[in-house]
Amino acid sequence: MSSAVKLEAKELLSVAAAEGVSVEKLRRLLDAGRVVIPRNAKRADGTCARNGNREIVLKAIGEGMSTKVNANVGTSKDYINYEEEVEKAKIAVRYGADTVMDLSTGSSSSDGGSGDLDETRRRILSEVNVPIGTVPIYQAAMEKAGLRAIVEMDSDDMFNAVRRHAEDGIDFITVHAGVNQNSLERLKRSGRILEIVSRGGAFLAAWMMHNERENPFYAEYEYLLEIAREYEVTLSLGDGLRPGCIADASDRAKFMEAITLGELVMQAREAGVSVLVEGPGHVPLDEIEASVKVLKHLTDFAPLYLLGPLVTDIAPGYDHLVSSIGGAVAGMYGADFLCMVSPSEHLALPSVSDIKEGMIVTKIAAHAADLVKEGQREKARRLDDEMAYARKRLDWTRQFELAINHEEARRIRASRPPLSDSDACSVCGDLCVLLKWEES
Amino acid sequence: MSSAVKLEAKELLSVAAAEGVSVEKLRRLLDAGRVVIPRNAKRADGTCARNGNREIVLKAIGEGMSTKVNANVGTSKDYINYEEEVEKAKIAVRYGADTVMDLSTGSSSSDGGSGDLDETRRRILSEVNVPIGTVPIYQAAMEKAGLRAIVEMDSDDMFNAVRRHAEDGIDFITVHAGVNQNSLERLKRSGRILEIVSRGGAFLAAWMMHNERENPFYAEYEYLLEIAREYEVTLSLGDGLRPGCIADASDRAKFMEAITLGELVMQAREAGVSVLVEGPGHVPLDEIEASVKVLKHLTDFAPLYLLGPLVTDIAPGYDHLVSSIGGAVAGMYGADFLCMVSPSEHLALPSVSDIKEGMIVTKIAAHAADLVKEGQREKARRLDDEMAYARKRLDWTRQFELAINHEEARRIRASRPPLSDSDACSVCGDLCVLLKWEES
Repeated sequence: MSSAVKLEAKELLSVAAAEGVSVEKLRRLLDAGRVVIPRNAKRADGTCARNGNREIVLKAIGEGMSTKVNANVGTSKDYINYEEEVEKAKIAVRYGADTVMDLSTGSSSSDGGSGDLDETRRRILSEVNVPIGTVPIYQAAMEKAGLRAIVEMDSDDMFNAVRRHAEDGIDFITVHAGVNQNSLERLKRSGRILEIVSRGGAFLAAWMMHNERENPFYAEYEYLLEIAREYEVTLSLGDGLRPGCIADASDRAKFMEAITLGELVMQAREAGVSVLVEGPGHVPLDEIEASVKVLKHLTDFAPLYLLGPLVTDIAPGYDHLVSSIGGAVAGMYGADFLCMVSPSEHLALPSVSDIKEGMIVTKIAAHAADLVKEGQREKARRLDDEMAYARKRLDWTRQFELAINHEEARRIRASRPPLSDSDACSVCGDLCVLLKWEES
Repeated sequence: MSSAVKLEAKELLSVAAAEGVSVEKLRRLLDAGRVVIPRNAKRADGTCARNGNREIVLKAIGEGMSTKVNANVGTSKDYINYEEEVEKAKIAVRYGADTVMDLSTGSSSSDGGSGDLDETRRRILSEVNVPIGTVPIYQAAMEKAGLRAIVEMDSDDMFNAVRRHAEDGIDFITVHAGVNQNSLERLKRSGRILEIVSRGGAFLAAWMMHNERENPFYAEYEYLLEIAREYEVTLSLGDGLRPGCIADASDRAKFMEAITLGELVMQAREAGVSVLVEGPGHVPLDEIEASVKVLKHLTDFAPLYLLGPLVTDIAPGYDHLVSSIGGAVAGMYGADFLCMVSPSEHLALPSVSDIKEGMIVTKIAAHAADLVKEGQREKARRLDDEMAYARKRLDWTRQFELAINHEEARRIRASRPPLSDSDACSVCGDLCVLLKWEES
């Protein structure tokens, strides 16, 4: 099987160098579908500038690569300000986002038009230089939602939204193709507290129940693959049935959907389409290892893209942190790609500063995972070892340079500087163990 | 072996009820030394008020109990403001600290007097109602440090400081009795980047090297046990050789000290003294399980009190979060007691708000651990399940009540309230999956 993404030799070389792996290893993993490098063909064929899109930094996502981080941005029905969403995308990239997803659902036209959605997406494509993802079903639904009748979409609406996003240059799209009649039946028998918490999953389930038909993304998956292949768009197979609370974390519905996604992974690879798999959600600490390993096996080791997992439900306002605990552990066990959760999760549309804080803590989780990840640990450890030596020398300049967020580290140190005549900090002053006072 | 702490039947009953365990189980674990309930005899004999000390809420720390959280407060040589330290202790308790340690080293007298240290300690004892811990070697050292000659302490200075703290009503004290000639020899051969990062450990190592003598807390451990028994003070056996960076995390010096601490645990139990064991420090994610399990075995399952562990060195300014990742994982594998790390760790003496943020994230880590901890998971899960049902009902009042920090959750929701005519939040507005719009 050959790699689904067409890379020039020099591009492959540069990605391999960024990851600290050999070109041969990268190529082997790409060919096996264990690593993907999302990039729309429109980004590669020299039409970027013509489209108003920026060229992107290529990112390898998957086994043996450093843990990647995605930032979700996008308007909501209640807050439609695309300047702010562009600002969020920019700040996310500034603080290390490897990719950005535009999840906009905010359209100001009451007639079901979605000009705002197109505008937000295109602005983000033109303003940031990382791979951009979307969930086209949102747009398809929004164009009907003005009429309050999501269930009245037809399958053409769905595929047209996919095509429109691909045509714009979107690099990866989420499709909830695993929400099929079989998995919904398993869901009904699962006895969950929170049945469906995925917005895309819920749109499709509602449509399927109302229309008594199969999910078009599942029934006409071959057609989806054709579009994806045409534009070299990476499919991110969404977990529309992801559990939404600790109680539901490891139920039959979740794994039924994953089994389906695994079959869809195989089909995508056979069609020469790059594919990622999305995972939950809410998982208690002691179920993360099993969850990650089983998902990896069921999906033939496709790159695993996780939202969270959140390891408790009771910390709204701190879900970025809750998610970074779960993300670090999931990364250790093989998750490849972490979706940033912001402090406002479960409460409100995030602000720009929420995106910044969410990014920083997710980058910390990703790095903590890289420190113990096969193929990445030596590279990651060099930073920590350098920090340890900088601490030993009381070399604050170097410590700040190495800090994931040097601004915050500087701010805190400056807020209470040492008063003693020493290079220590104000915790111990001239009693600092690193001052070698025992020899004085 | 009988329990080292004298509890009245009704006290035992109330602690068991708080933990959701039977009195028989609690008594059995106390008798085995796997659980301790720190309380100075001066708190129990009715002299609390006479001493100006408050009665305390008893806390069971150890196997099968909920994961406890300690907050460190205290002046430094550079910042001596005991009103602020009392304020930190109060805010820590308000946000859920089970215990508080006063680590003050700030004395404004230049002649080696330590009136400020006594004052800070006594104020904290009188103002908060949780068990209070200290590290008496700090005071012994400070009384010499005015002369810049910590190495000139004699062993009487050290034991007198212990006795003074015990006499004041301190409930648990850290003694670095495992920093002995044997473990220092192992340290020399370990080739660490950062040799000693524990302040108490460094004081003692310097003293031992300068004086060419054994650590008095080790050599005269029997005398220490006498004092502890007299006041019913719990000993917290400090890890003076704890690793201070990821590179040093699992070295021979650390486990050599733990072996010594294990022997000291047995001696303490034989003498009828309650004992905790302190653990590191900096540990990468994939070494936490081994670290916790080995420490538990080496110390005959004494309650394990962890600082961190920090899972990366490169996030100064966010070490509260880094520590909560490690603490949650350590808790899952059996750590019983987490020492809060503040955002200012490695940078500056914490502010009051640093203590608050550190507490909240450490409580989240402790709860995430309790969700998967034998003996606590059912009790902990009730909160998460209630939150899931409150979410399902879109019952925001109940969601806020259940939130670990309801103020922050309320603030975020209020900052971007839903504009649609719905009970949803502004992420999805009236597209909220919980609104059951599919039936509309």
